[in-house]
Amino acid sequence: MSMILSALENIPLIRQGDNLADIVLNATNFSLLDNDIFVLAQKIVSKSEGRMVNLANVKPSEKAIELANQTEKDARLVELMLQESNEVVRFRKNVIVVEHKLGFICANAGIDHSNVLGDGDNKDVVLLLPENPDNSAKQIRDEIKKRTNKNVGVMIIDSHGRAWRNGTVGICIGLSGIPAVIDERGWKDLFGYTLQATIIGVADELAAAASLVMGQAAEGTPVVHVRGFPYPLSEGSLRELIRPKDMDMFR
Amino acid sequence: MSMILSALENIPLIRQGDNLADIVLNATNFSLLDNDIFVLAQKIVSKSEGRMVNLANVKPSEKAIELANQTEKDARLVELMLQESNEVVRFRKNVIVVEHKLGFICANAGIDHSNVLGDGDNKDVVLLLPENPDNSAKQIRDEIKKRTNKNVGVMIIDSHGRAWRNGTVGICIGLSGIPAVIDERGWKDLFGYTLQATIIGVADELAAAASLVMGQAAEGTPVVHVRGFPYPLSEGSLRELIRPKDMDMFR
Repeated sequence: MSMILSALENIPLIRQGDNLADIVLNATNFSLLDNDIFVLAQKIVSKSEGRMVNLANVKPSEKAIELANQTEKDARLVELMLQESNEVVRFRKNVIVVEHKLGFICANAGIDHSNVLGDGDNKDVVLLLPENPDNSAKQIRDEIKKRTNKNVGVMIIDSHGRAWRNGTVGICIGLSGIPAVIDERGWKDLFGYTLQATIIGVADELAAAASLVMGQAAEGTPVVHVRGFPYPLSEGSLRELIRPKDMDMFR
Repeated sequence: MSMILSALENIPLIRQGDNLADIVLNATNFSLLDNDIFVLAQKIVSKSEGRMVNLANVKPSEKAIELANQTEKDARLVELMLQESNEVVRFRKNVIVVEHKLGFICANAGIDHSNVLGDGDNKDVVLLLPENPDNSAKQIRDEIKKRTNKNVGVMIIDSHGRAWRNGTVGICIGLSGIPAVIDERGWKDLFGYTLQATIIGVADELAAAASLVMGQAAEGTPVVHVRGFPYPLSEGSLRELIRPKDMDMFR
């Protein structure tokens, strides 16, 4: 069994209002199959949805100013981080770790400062995460279905730092038509033992795989096509990937 | 650019003393190329190295008995977990999170209870992690080089739970000939901005990808061949993947 991940060439710079299903299909120079998956970088989804904010228009609250002083960050940026978050989990110089409004833990509320515009040099423009990435993924998936009659999965990924380990890894922040986790509890292993506690984070495993193929910086390949995902496609949601706070030993 | 991950068929049950380079090459029914990578499940490496322990031969310490009572686990198993660890980081019913002797944080010191023997029904036999997985990987890599004259990378992976998110993901516990992380700090992005803080955990991204293709339970495909890893092969080590304790906000 093989899984093939291919970065799509010829994805143009994305601007607000762009139709990503269109752009992805235009860049797909082969026949789609049912159960194929497209993995999209968060950045292009946010851009197409107009999630750019000019810091010049942000007025920091007192709380943001205080946290900005403690972390040596731009208070306007910190204000956006607070607006995008349920709570601040940890902070220190240069890093603010939050529970994002979407439920997951991440640094700096996922707000991105690089590669935002591409059509100017305004370093004050930052990019927020999509408002509802599961829904963004579903829209793209539905549109692809409509145009091709193929049942594909769509995932939106970001790069997150992690507790305990160095290096960012791709993680899933939204998905449609792809299982988020596979619950193998109760399955038998090769020798008939019943597995006790295996829930596999297949969406995050796929996100990491796609992120590796995308690269990070200058490559400009924000869409990866996946063939051979080893589980049947089914409907998953971001919510399934987030450990409830009271079940988390590291909050 | 494509990356192809293929589970090798025809990997037999592994026993103590088996030569894994041999077994991997025998199962490879295509021509190897330089820069190909083999990813091996921890379990078969541990087995080949004889890391099985029969709990009947383990005498739990007082500390192990106390922790076993608190977590409702087998005290002999807990004794092994303590022996395999630098410290206990968190615990609660059924779970003990430790800093393993190898340096990383994981549940139950990575000690595995399923699929261990395959040649009997002794549920008292458990499997410890390889003693030095980087070295295990290097031995297999060197042996493959010797036999094929191909420069391949070798990685050993396990499945770990994570803070904050549901589901286990494959992570790297040992590697040879593969970069552990790629440091993009100072690189320019697509528009000439200098990246501030991107260190990519490429080894863990690859581990997650391979884990997805291996599956977990009954598949019996503990070796994955990778072609098209998007970075040049170079020497990495597990140590590079582990965040120093004083740099970790979640210890």
